[in-house]
Amino acid sequence: MAQESILYDLSHSYSDETVYWVTARQFELDTVFAGDTDKGYYYSAYDFTTAEHGGTHLDAPIHFAKGKQAVDEVPLEKLIGPAIKIDVSKKAWDNPDYLVSVDDLVSWESDQGTPIPEGSIVLLYTAHSRHYPDALKYLGTDQRGDDAIALLHFPGLSPEAAQWLVDNRKINAIGLDTPSIDYGQSSLFESHVILLGENIPVFENLTNLQDLPASGFEIMALPMKIEGGSGAPLRVVARVSE
Amino acid sequence: MAQESILYDLSHSYSDETVYWVTARQFELDTVFAGDTDKGYYYSAYDFTTAEHGGTHLDAPIHFAKGKQAVDEVPLEKLIGPAIKIDVSKKAWDNPDYLVSVDDLVSWESDQGTPIPEGSIVLLYTAHSRHYPDALKYLGTDQRGDDAIALLHFPGLSPEAAQWLVDNRKINAIGLDTPSIDYGQSSLFESHVILLGENIPVFENLTNLQDLPASGFEIMALPMKIEGGSGAPLRVVARVSE
Ligand SMILES: [Zn+2]
Ligand SMILES: [Zn+2]
Repeated sequence: MAQESILYDLSHSYSDETVYWVTARQFELDTVFAGDTDKGYYYSAYDFTTAEHGGTHLDAPIHFAKGKQAVDEVPLEKLIGPAIKIDVSKKAWDNPDYLVSVDDLVSWESDQGTPIPEGSIVLLYTAHSRHYPDALKYLGTDQRGDDAIALLHFPGLSPEAAQWLVDNRKINAIGLDTPSIDYGQSSLFESHVILLGENIPVFENLTNLQDLPASGFEIMALPMKIEGGSGAPLRVVARVSE
Repeated sequence: MAQESILYDLSHSYSDETVYWVTARQFELDTVFAGDTDKGYYYSAYDFTTAEHGGTHLDAPIHFAKGKQAVDEVPLEKLIGPAIKIDVSKKAWDNPDYLVSVDDLVSWESDQGTPIPEGSIVLLYTAHSRHYPDALKYLGTDQRGDDAIALLHFPGLSPEAAQWLVDNRKINAIGLDTPSIDYGQSSLFESHVILLGENIPVFENLTNLQDLPASGFEIMALPMKIEGGSGAPLRVVARVSE
């Protein structure tokens, strides 16, 4: 608890600029009161409205898997614990349709000299968050609505790699610095279905992954506790020992 | 990271039952879609609306202190770290107007044989959360609106004790298992003003504090990162070593 360590905030903030799926309701903050009261003290308070899935957020298993865990049912043990980072930023840099492959996972293992440890939280670093919140660059389109879905371009995890993780490793959770675990051009969301179907929660729209090492750090990823929710705003912090 | 430890969830979930201040907008979850899609996969997603201050939430300094930190500006170092619990449950059990006193703080110190350590997150355990979410018992009234404010009865921290903490100890944050750091009958919210004025964030509507020891555990309290927010839904987890 008292070791020397540094905390990194891996969450974007919520504001008018927060990036949402092109069909989702965007964040809206309404002022209830902000100013001096007639009793002499200052006071400010706001209400807000948002889709569950926007900005840095959790996909709970029930988002794509009937009968699986909702946000409030995801065990804390899956959200807090040792983590690794798989760096595919060189390959994804100029390719917004990049799919993280089984090869990328195996390369991390041979570089590190170990299989992905059981119980890991796996972070995929594509460097795509450098475009956030520029929708045209980050999503591939600044249009919104159903017609914009075909225009989405951003990296994701290939369904083959998702299936390989489920079949061959035991991970606690997975996250990445793009809008979705399935890449922009996906239409069947197979990586979602594979991972969430195994009750593996997914973190989307992460940032600051460039600051993390390849292994040996801890993730604390705490979602707003929405009863029955399919997803939720997620605050993600990495603790890296010095 | 790999020590034996147990995680305790100190947050209530958000639902139709979530307890809000009598004048605040309550939580509302709207279904966008929930069911099988024509592409063959299951899908569910929701939107929601809420006041910042309801359920288990953070009070950011700017809530009662002009120019102080907003939610997104509260340093992570104040939200994650070693914590203590001050148990006043016996005194508060039958007294919904109980005010945690300087004596209660000093008693913890003499029992533990140490001043409240610098950098602590201080939790006040009143046991009042046993009434949650029964508004009549937990708030003192099941009425809502301006006229209900005078009917509020629940324990809080006395302004004298808040001032003593600010003057004599260096704490990182403070939280309790009642709706507000000022007790129900407060009209000037002086403990808020004193603590938030020193950029000490406050956690309200905590639960499960009965499971924690008096010291030697860690708190992770991660709010939704609302830019400029005066408060936010807060997920609070305690890690207790075995
Ligand atoms: Zn999502
Ligand atoms: Zn509050």
